[in-house]
Amino acid sequence: MTHPQSNAVVLLSGGLDSTVTAAIAQQDGFRIHCLTVSYGQRHGVEVLRAQAVAAALGAGGHVIVTVDLRALGGSALTADLAVPKDRTERERAGEIPITYVPARNTIFLSLALAHAETLQAQAIYFGANVLDYSGYPDCRPEFIRAFEAVARLGTKMGVEGRAIEVRAPLLMLSKAEIVRRGQELNVPFELTHSCYDPGVDGVACGRCDSCRIRREGFRQAGVEDPVPYAIL
Amino acid sequence: MTHPQSNAVVLLSGGLDSTVTAAIAQQDGFRIHCLTVSYGQRHGVEVLRAQAVAAALGAGGHVIVTVDLRALGGSALTADLAVPKDRTERERAGEIPITYVPARNTIFLSLALAHAETLQAQAIYFGANVLDYSGYPDCRPEFIRAFEAVARLGTKMGVEGRAIEVRAPLLMLSKAEIVRRGQELNVPFELTHSCYDPGVDGVACGRCDSCRIRREGFRQAGVEDPVPYAIL
Repeated sequence: MTHPQSNAVVLLSGGLDSTVTAAIAQQDGFRIHCLTVSYGQRHGVEVLRAQAVAAALGAGGHVIVTVDLRALGGSALTADLAVPKDRTERERAGEIPITYVPARNTIFLSLALAHAETLQAQAIYFGANVLDYSGYPDCRPEFIRAFEAVARLGTKMGVEGRAIEVRAPLLMLSKAEIVRRGQELNVPFELTHSCYDPGVDGVACGRCDSCRIRREGFRQAGVEDPVPYAIL
Repeated sequence: MTHPQSNAVVLLSGGLDSTVTAAIAQQDGFRIHCLTVSYGQRHGVEVLRAQAVAAALGAGGHVIVTVDLRALGGSALTADLAVPKDRTERERAGEIPITYVPARNTIFLSLALAHAETLQAQAIYFGANVLDYSGYPDCRPEFIRAFEAVARLGTKMGVEGRAIEVRAPLLMLSKAEIVRRGQELNVPFELTHSCYDPGVDGVACGRCDSCRIRREGFRQAGVEDPVPYAIL
């Protein structure tokens, strides 16, 4: 527990993981300031969901920063590559998915760091998770520790001895455990959005890796997922 | 020296330091790919100068990424604070200047990292300099080493054993030494732009810290600065 008025910046995508993370930051005693990065992703509906989530949680602030990562090239989430569908856990395992955006978490954490220093925030929360996305190098604990060193050495606050912590409370949880934590914290699951390839109506496809992992997580947790899907 | 066809990403602002840095990257044998970050700075003329510099150097590519850092708050370079004028070296020393943009170099290096991974580049070059800007925490060697760890741990290339190096060849040079290096490499000084507070006509003020440091550097190097200033 920390002082009730301490600020934390939460990287909020509007997805399940970042929403549960935001609720955990509040439970840890922080006043949360949400930061959503709009990066030219196909699932732009995320930004709208993030606004709804931030409002529902009563965040102290919510900023949206636009960075056009398409200018930098790469990845199915920002370019016109096909999003893989209907892959089993085995098919997903042991590779870096093509949905990997180069250095995405480094960019997101850098933006959060700038916002945290402006707000004199004590911590940055983000929803990285090592188990489901083992293929993403920037979701590993050693990456997070390395970024904390950058935060300590590269900011005025760090130099002055008030290092900004990077907390990834979901890092070691399964998706089912994340769902259970969210349920305990009364997270507005109905507002969250996880699909990599929603329809034009914003409805989740139910078939991309992200949808499959989410639905398996709810099933395993024995919790009903209130979000509608394009397939049963 | 490296293989002639290896790629390097150069963070190019269009200023003196980053332009000399780009020329050094070419001398080191790299094909350079310039990356300019347009971050809502008042000195937007920098972006135009960066384009002219990249073209003059014959860069393999030049991308401009827009990130509105004003959304994140802070700093005289992005907000409506007054830029300090006519300060002596003594007045500039030993403090973090108000022109400090929180986590700016971390953000810039993160974007360069994403671009470097997309291009399979071997190095990122940037023009950080420890002597003139001793007040910026993110211009120190320990910061750069910490960022290299992030680059190694947070990218697919790093995981695969092809870590991306971060090179700051000007880090320990005085401004006069930078000018001399630029002269040796036939850098187009006339295209470069260093002013924090140019007039509406784009002419450098000659009085902000950046102009004063630049002009002192040219004077000490015994090289004529071809850029016009609003004051003598």
